Amino acid sequence: MFQKVLIANRGEIALRILRACKDLGIQTVAVHSVADSNAMHVRLADESVCIGPNPARDSYLNIPSILAACEITGADAVHPGYGFLSENARFARILTEHKITFIGPSSHHIEIMGDKITAKKTAVELGIPVVPGSAGAVSTEEEARRTAAEIGYPVLIKATAGGGGRGMKVAPSEADLIVAWSTARSEAKAAFGNDSVYMEKYLAKPRHIEVQVMGDGQGNAVHLGTRDCSLQRRHQKIWEEASAPTVPKDQQMRIGEICAAAMRKLKYSGAGTIEFLYENGEFYFIEMNTRLQVEHPVTERITGIDIVYEQIRVASGETLSIEQDKVPFYGHAIEVRINAEDPQTFAPSPGKISFYHPAGGVGVRVDSAVYQGYTIPPYYDSLIGKLIVYGRTREECLQRLRRAIDEFVVDGVKTTLPLFQRLIKEPDILSGNYDIHWLEKYLAANKV
Amino acid sequence: MFQKVLIANRGEIALRILRACKDLGIQTVAVHSVADSNAMHVRLADESVCIGPNPARDSYLNIPSILAACEITGADAVHPGYGFLSENARFARILTEHKITFIGPSSHHIEIMGDKITAKKTAVELGIPVVPGSAGAVSTEEEARRTAAEIGYPVLIKATAGGGGRGMKVAPSEADLIVAWSTARSEAKAAFGNDSVYMEKYLAKPRHIEVQVMGDGQGNAVHLGTRDCSLQRRHQKIWEEASAPTVPKDQQMRIGEICAAAMRKLKYSGAGTIEFLYENGEFYFIEMNTRLQVEHPVTERITGIDIVYEQIRVASGETLSIEQDKVPFYGHAIEVRINAEDPQTFAPSPGKISFYHPAGGVGVRVDSAVYQGYTIPPYYDSLIGKLIVYGRTREECLQRLRRAIDEFVVDGVKTTLPLFQRLIKEPDILSGNYDIHWLEKYLAANKV
Repeated sequence: MFQKVLIANRGEIALRILRACKDLGIQTVAVHSVADSNAMHVRLADESVCIGPNPARDSYLNIPSILAACEITGADAVHPGYGFLSENARFARILTEHKITFIGPSSHHIEIMGDKITAKKTAVELGIPVVPGSAGAVSTEEEARRTAAEIGYPVLIKATAGGGGRGMKVAPSEADLIVAWSTARSEAKAAFGNDSVYMEKYLAKPRHIEVQVMGDGQGNAVHLGTRDCSLQRRHQKIWEEASAPTVPKDQQMRIGEICAAAMRKLKYSGAGTIEFLYENGEFYFIEMNTRLQVEHPVTERITGIDIVYEQIRVASGETLSIEQDKVPFYGHAIEVRINAEDPQTFAPSPGKISFYHPAGGVGVRVDSAVYQGYTIPPYYDSLIGKLIVYGRTREECLQRLRRAIDEFVVDGVKTTLPLFQRLIKEPDILSGNYDIHWLEKYLAANKV
Repeated sequence: MFQKVLIANRGEIALRILRACKDLGIQTVAVHSVADSNAMHVRLADESVCIGPNPARDSYLNIPSILAACEITGADAVHPGYGFLSENARFARILTEHKITFIGPSSHHIEIMGDKITAKKTAVELGIPVVPGSAGAVSTEEEARRTAAEIGYPVLIKATAGGGGRGMKVAPSEADLIVAWSTARSEAKAAFGNDSVYMEKYLAKPRHIEVQVMGDGQGNAVHLGTRDCSLQRRHQKIWEEASAPTVPKDQQMRIGEICAAAMRKLKYSGAGTIEFLYENGEFYFIEMNTRLQVEHPVTERITGIDIVYEQIRVASGETLSIEQDKVPFYGHAIEVRINAEDPQTFAPSPGKISFYHPAGGVGVRVDSAVYQGYTIPPYYDSLIGKLIVYGRTREECLQRLRRAIDEFVVDGVKTTLPLFQRLIKEPDILSGNYDIHWLEKYLAANKV
């Protein structure tokens, strides 16, 4: 087992990883920008190193600085969390060259899953169902027309290097195709320095269903069930559930087993998430995230498994401690993301927290790195806490979630808590009747 | 289901009950003394009523005031929590006469279990194993000598009306008997206005093992497994575990089933706890508590069942929603009681909390009614919070507990957190090798 782990991240996920390290008796090193010197993960770590100025590119994305912090502190492993360098194959490779373990999959697996076209090809080879689409990049108008006709309208055009909705356009019919295609290309070029786009069948009312997987790089792999993350605003998830409420249990287990089998074939190591669109009882692969995800706690709650603990264990060379047929899948869990944002406009709301009181009691977990008196800096994403609630049934879970949201107090900055107070009264949310477009439509129709 | 529940208690348990009511969509009424106007349960309740001055006898024990508060607010049920009026059969009866539901067992069941001699007789009738002892009160020196000789030394002398260790004496041999017996009688007289004492076999190194039961008053009853609450200081529990770590699983299930069967025979309604001493593989009944207990959350964590929710449901006339063979008993949970006390001397430490930050993250539940800026009044017991931690195994649970204790911050008052920081490093605690005398011995030997 590792002696000392450097946590190359900030915020709630840095604290989450720190907690797992402490549970395992591993020393921790926090890294931080100048603005983050008073952050909770810095306060609670055994050691901390300031790795640069506030912009993430100069600190949390600064590979030489992080390497130097490893060498100064003698860390023998790095946990990258999510975002920042977590899916950077080069970072994983450089660490390996310096004999420091990257807590995550091999750089090869990051690479084949990081590029969306390669990922889809790999998925097909591994027997994972994919959405019908172009074989590769669609580079000419002629090719765009032909491919769209083959797939059938509506079609979706997406940047190969993309993420977060940039470089993504829908063409409802042939009349819209060329404009959508060329707009996606320009956006992709501007956002990622790469105008390559591909094309897929557009699903009208899909749900976002994902499967959590864990492998040990030695051919053992399991799935930890499904999550429904359909409630999204601008492709950012805000509310996640496990297990997926509207997918029949046998379908969940079947897609889970397909994903686990694929990971066994790949000899995948660590945690990963295979994301699907789900419509009319069919799953369509969209992408794989080769890292821990924000919403991993809902899976932890229904399985009892500590995913970060297991990531660290397998990265240290141990085999998977989980046997598929002993994973319990007990009850239901929902996570809501508390962002320091105006709940109407979603404008970030950094500033000082004048009063902070997290919800507590039965079935409630809070993952947050803020505290009363803490000043949220304006430089990073606005996630300040995650509220995870458990119930024996989805109904019980929703009842508790409503109570926990009411109880949670964050004063001094605006947060998305009032949005959740509204959402939890919506019949579609209560019945689980929502798709990936529901939230955008709701927000457009319910401007306060 | 009830429309409005009045919570006749304060502190963390008032908040615990309030949360269950909110989960069920029931309106809540908080009652409070003058000193408690800023208490969390008052802030979060739908309505609140001041029921009197600070001493508990003038407010939380003041039956006419509480009845008046019910009538003013139109509450149709009262949850008494633990302590205060929770085992007061007269209170239960008066509420019933006023057509207000007492959320707890019938006054008859409170009575037969509240008096320790009657309770033991009932236990014998119900087939619950009891410790060998006197048939009833031991009123003469002659009777004391004869009974002690029959039972065999050492013997324990206890007040029939007793609790909390008052009026309780051990006689190691015949030479000590009469002094112990007459001291117990005088103490009992002073503490309870009743000098009646009884006698039992004294167990040298027993563990305190208890069984949580739930009935619906209609003949359905289940057990929710065992708890080990052996870590006690002056008969006050400070650390509780579920399931009991050193009792073989089959013994746990057997004693659980004996208790559940007894409750079925009694047609017991609501939550109850049957407490045993456990030594050399044998259980010896000590008492039954006909109410919710402080340590109920550890049972909630390993079963997934919300005990307060279920108390309210059955009090409203619904049948038990729990089937014995579907109770899962998954993993291990430990609760530590955070008291506002000097961790060396155990002197109460009321005052203002200048900084408060509860532990969070995976497997952590916090039940507390305090907040940053809150002033702990000097009038009531010193429990300010309960930290409940879960793990798939006891070892995982202990690892997380160590981390959570380190993370928990309460500044401005002294708390028992430093005691737990010491205890969690003790080999006997880590191995589960402790009995009901362990903590007293440890404290005597490890004065800092």
